[in-house]
Formats: sequence, structure tokens, C-alpha cells
Amino acid sequence: MQHGAERVSVDGSPIPVARPRLPPASAIQPYLREIDGNFWYSNHGPLALRLQSRLAAHWGVDDQNVTLIANATSGLTLALLASGARPGQRCLMPSWTFVASAGAVVAAGLVPHFVDVLPSTWAPDPTTIERLARQPDVGAILIVAPFGAPLDLAVWDEVRRRTGMPLIIDAAAAFDTLQAGGPMPAGECPLVVSLHATKVFGVGEGGALLSRDPDLAQKVRALAQFGFAGSRLAQTQGVNAKISEYTAAVGLAGLDTWDGERAQWDRVTQAYCAMLPRDLALAPTFGQGWVASTLTVLWPEDRPGLAGALSAEGVSTLSWWGLGCHAQPAYKGHTAEDLPTTQIYARRSVGVPFWKDLSETQIAFVCDALGRTLRHADRKSPPRTLVAA
Amino acid sequence: MQHGAERVSVDGSPIPVARPRLPPASAIQPYLREIDGNFWYSNHGPLALRLQSRLAAHWGVDDQNVTLIANATSGLTLALLASGARPGQRCLMPSWTFVASAGAVVAAGLVPHFVDVLPSTWAPDPTTIERLARQPDVGAILIVAPFGAPLDLAVWDEVRRRTGMPLIIDAAAAFDTLQAGGPMPAGECPLVVSLHATKVFGVGEGGALLSRDPDLAQKVRALAQFGFAGSRLAQTQGVNAKISEYTAAVGLAGLDTWDGERAQWDRVTQAYCAMLPRDLALAPTFGQGWVASTLTVLWPEDRPGLAGALSAEGVSTLSWWGLGCHAQPAYKGHTAEDLPTTQIYARRSVGVPFWKDLSETQIAFVCDALGRTLRHADRKSPPRTLVAA
Repeated sequence: MQHGAERVSVDGSPIPVARPRLPPASAIQPYLREIDGNFWYSNHGPLALRLQSRLAAHWGVDDQNVTLIANATSGLTLALLASGARPGQRCLMPSWTFVASAGAVVAAGLVPHFVDVLPSTWAPDPTTIERLARQPDVGAILIVAPFGAPLDLAVWDEVRRRTGMPLIIDAAAAFDTLQAGGPMPAGECPLVVSLHATKVFGVGEGGALLSRDPDLAQKVRALAQFGFAGSRLAQTQGVNAKISEYTAAVGLAGLDTWDGERAQWDRVTQAYCAMLPRDLALAPTFGQGWVASTLTVLWPEDRPGLAGALSAEGVSTLSWWGLGCHAQPAYKGHTAEDLPTTQIYARRSVGVPFWKDLSETQIAFVCDALGRTLRHADRKSPPRTLVAA
Repeated sequence: MQHGAERVSVDGSPIPVARPRLPPASAIQPYLREIDGNFWYSNHGPLALRLQSRLAAHWGVDDQNVTLIANATSGLTLALLASGARPGQRCLMPSWTFVASAGAVVAAGLVPHFVDVLPSTWAPDPTTIERLARQPDVGAILIVAPFGAPLDLAVWDEVRRRTGMPLIIDAAAAFDTLQAGGPMPAGECPLVVSLHATKVFGVGEGGALLSRDPDLAQKVRALAQFGFAGSRLAQTQGVNAKISEYTAAVGLAGLDTWDGERAQWDRVTQAYCAMLPRDLALAPTFGQGWVASTLTVLWPEDRPGLAGALSAEGVSTLSWWGLGCHAQPAYKGHTAEDLPTTQIYARRSVGVPFWKDLSETQIAFVCDALGRTLRHADRKSPPRTLVAA
């Protein structure tokens, strides 16, 4: 997938869905010169430690609560392993997530069991999860902060306590949602944040574990460096999930200008909130105190050919989560609860252009196109209202 | 582990074992500016594709034979998975390797079964491997090019053909050994090379799969990007093992000056070959047409306290592979053949200072210290000659 570089205009050439902008070479250069002086290129170097510390400040937690990981998918796998989830057991998880979540669960030796999401939260029903967790072959729970929207983590901490089961929060898109003073303060459950190029704050490839449990953080660190813990003796199994100092350099350069970048993301978010047709549903609390790098809208009724219709209007779209994990060829064989809401979302959701330097004119263009497409709905498919919140 | 930065002198302050030097900021900068223009930061961007292509030229294979991976450990795991090794089966592998090899095998859902190495090759005996591969619970084979020393890959291709079993070559340190026209041309078995900071050619964190089998390469690529193959549909399970464009930038900058760097590595290699005491055994064919970033010497007899004795001489040492994987706490419980040679190597091997800008004076200093330590052998332990080649 190419990030950007396409023409961006309102004259008929399609507006791309995403257009990542990471720090320019000039902003990264001072950090590369530091690396030149340090002669230290990976393995928890000084830049990686500084990035961990600055991320901890951003999230309002202690330095040792943050662990940098090669990417968020690896982070989820290592968090599941470190939490003691036993291989071969089932892991309860929403089907309504990016397919990497399921890949991470399988890489941890677990078997996904897909559950539906609630229209009110776009996340699983805690009561359902608690009921299903009583089944003897269930060994772990993965809950997703959908498109960066905040979860009530106190509720999930409670589920974790009552079930005694490893519960990991896939907070891939929640870099900003987790900010100090933000709408989703870290709780007891470990969280994994993506720092991929397509996120609001990206380093290219990278991720971070946010865990208030020092033992769990220590276990993840060991798993991410061959099982080493304080020496070159592998105390546990382990892989390599370290980040290089170069990756840390990009992150430090990005944090230097984060406030301004965030303001840009928020400007685009607020402009969309003001101009989007009212018939479209958005991720819960979208526009209210957090920003993410995608905008997925839910059509009020089934609309076959929606992507084509919007493309004809000059608006590119992307189905970020496809038809849900349960519908991906790789995971079709796995067990699942009934998934009525997921199936509606799979049919009716579409990711529209969303990037931090979209102009108001471009946003208006997209919203006009959405409005026209709404009015020219294909009436051959019976209109169905969205499952009520 | 810090890479370098310590004092390097012959006046009594210890000479470090390793002192990585990756391309300076000035050499990376032009590539970062290219990234600025491309607006493409990961996901098989133009710099990553160019690096793949240039590595293919370096190794004398086709572009599509090379696949960049987040790191070599992940590369081994994905190569095992892509080769069809069935989870739960045993993987034959030498105990005499870096512990990452065992971690990669476990991460592929396999169970290590450790075998000994031959003094002539520092690698397993192909006849033993072929015999053990007949056991019904054995499902894969991992062979290591020890410290970058060449293997006779035709022999291992033959083992692979006769056993019909997935056979992966852990060529972590063999970046140069695999060069076009070099001593270990790629055969049929997939090879995984490390591009970690501590290798002769490093990008910080990175690795590469070298496979002449386009199907296997395609499978690894899918496994490394969520199972995607040509679309955003996960056709198979998958994780994230991509490299960013920033990582590719470091690699491209490194290749620009590789010939000169290699000459430096070779200069140090040849100087050691000329000055090392004759009683010390080296990796097979060390100094003959390939370079690596480490020098492990084998003491002719047991020598308790060797590291301390050399440290007192001002020479830092590191046991790169510890006492072998079978002796690591994480893997002690696994089955193993008798390991007499591995146990001798574990007791008698030591990694000595080795980096590309070591001066002849420093090398002479290290070799003198080795010579003195040899002459002042602790005679309390009975001298035992090394198992004959």
C-alpha cells in the first residue's frame, strides 16, 4: 500500500484515503548525529530509552510502564504470552478489528473465538465476554479500542479481575486517546499501541506496550530479546522484537512537533464533525477529546456498490477492517458467536479520506460526495436502520 | 548491550569485544530526503524494494529471491512456518548456536531437539541428521552456518531432498559468505541472514530471507504482512515482520560503501590469522574468502577462569553462544542427543575483540595477551586436546 504521493485535488482526481506524513529528514538529522556519537544502534540504546520515557510522559505513566516493541502485532503476541495465556486455548476477541489482531492471537499459540460488538461502543459486550470466559477452553481475552475510540477500561479491569483471565487491550489506534488527561487513562489491563506509519503518531514500524504491572512489562521485555533478563542467559523462550535507534530517532523527532500535528488532526476531525451528513454513524465519541488517523463512517442502510459510487464522485475509500476477521479466509474456520452487528458494520462501513493536512475545501468535497451518494441510495436493497445503540 | 563507545586503548583499559559502526548521518541523509519526497514510510516502499534488489545483486540471485524481514529471528520462524513444518513436531537443530535460533523454532510452534556439531564444520553431521529425521515426531531441520563460516549447502540440499523435510539454513552471520562468487552460494534450502547492528553489514534491526523457491518466498511475504497476498484479504495466518523505509535507508547507505568496509573487515581478519597463537582453533576456513563480525577462538584445553585471565590482560571477551542452547534455562527441558563436542566448545570457546577498525597494534596486543594466557595455563585442570577434526 502506498501512503500518499497521489494527486490530491477537488477537480475529479480521487482524494486518497490516507496520506501519512512522518517527520522530515531535517527533523530526524540531529538524532542521527547523536547516534553517530553514541555508536549504539539497537538493543535498548539511549534514544530508545529516551523515547520510552517521553512516551510515558505523554501517557501520564511511569517510564518503566512503557516498553517499545518492533510493532503492535508483536506487542499483542508478547503481551498474551507474558500474561500466561496457555497455548491451545481459545482467545475471546471481536471479529470487528484489523486482521493483525487475529494474527497476533494465533502467533501466541491461541485460537481465536470471535464475538460480536455493541453498537454503543463498537466493542464486545463485557457481560457476554464474562459469560463466555467461564468455558473451560477459554484462556485469554483481547479487546479492541475501535479505530482509537476510548473504552471504559474500568469495566474491562473488572472483567479481568472477576474472570482471573489474561485480558489485553488492542489500543493500536489509541496513541492520542491514551494521552495524560485524555478520555482513556491506562488501567490494569496491558495496552498495546501501534506506532505504524499510518497512525496519528508513526515511526515507520513500531509499537509500544503500556503496562502498569512491572512484572508483566519485564516479561514482555525478556520475550522481546531472546528471553534475556539482565544477562545473556535465556530465562524464558523469546524472540527479537526490539526497535533500532533509527526507529527511536524518528519517534523523538515526531514527539518534538506532536502538539502541532495533533492540532492538525483535530482540525480535520472537527471539520468532518461539522460537515458530515447526519445520517452517517461514526465511532463512539468521535471528535470528543481524541484524534485518530482514520475516519470510518457507517451507512444507515445496506448500500451495495458504495465504494464504486464514491470513487465515481472522486472520493477514494478503504474498508480498513474488511468484512471482519471471521470472514477472512485465514480465520474462517474458527468458532464464533452470532455476529449480527459485525455483519452490518462489514456491509455498511467505509473508510473515507482522512489525513492531517486535508483542507476544509477537500473535507467539504468529501462530505458533499457522501451526501449526494446518500440521496442517490440504491433503493433495490431494502433500507434497514442500524441496530439501535 | 552497548555497542562500542568504550575507550579503546592498549594502555590497560579493556579493548571491547565489538564496536559496531553503521553509516553516519551524512550518508543516510540523502535517502531520508528521498523518503520526504516519496511520502512512503513502510509497507514495501521504494527504498525497501531497492534494498532487496541490491542485496540480490550482492548475493548473485534474482530480486524476487530476497525478502526483507524485521529481523533474522522472525525470518527463521516465518521460513519454518512457510515450509510447512507442523506445529508440535520436533525440529532438529544444533545446540551450538545463538539462542535466537531456538527461540525462532519455538515461535514456529516446534520443539527443539538439540544435536551435536562436528569439529570439522562446527555444524551437525548430515548423516546423523538424516538418521534422526526418520523419527516420526521430527518435522523440521534447522542448520546454522557457525559464526558465518560456510556450509556445504549441496550436502544439505541432498539431506532435504532425501528426507523430504523442511530444512532452513540459519545464515545469520553469513552476509558476506553468501556473496556472489563467495564460498557459500545459495542452494535450494532457504537461508536467513541477519542485518542486525552487530553483523558485518547492519541496518540496526533487520534480516533477509534468501530463497530460490518463489512459492516459499511468496508465503514468507504473506506471513510477514498479516497473511495478505495481493489484497487486504488474509489468505493465511500472518503477523507483521515488515521493515520501514528508514531501515531500508540505512541499508542503502551501508551498501554504498560496502566494498571499503569489507576491506577493513578482511584486513582485521588477515591480521588476526597472521598473529594468533597456533594453538587456538578457529571457525572452519576463517580468513579464507569470507568475513564476519566476530572472532571466536577455541582454547586447546579446558581453562577455567579464562575470561577473567584475559580481562586482567586488558582484553574483553564475550561468550557469543554461551554454553549452547541446551544449557540455557529456557531450553534445558528439551530433548537432545549426546553433545560432547558442543560441551567442549562451550567450555573452551571465547569471543575476542573484533571490529573493522581495530588497529594492527591492538590486534597484536590481543594476540600477545592470548599467547601469555596460553603459556600460563591453569595446570590444575588436566590438559585435554580438542576432539580431532
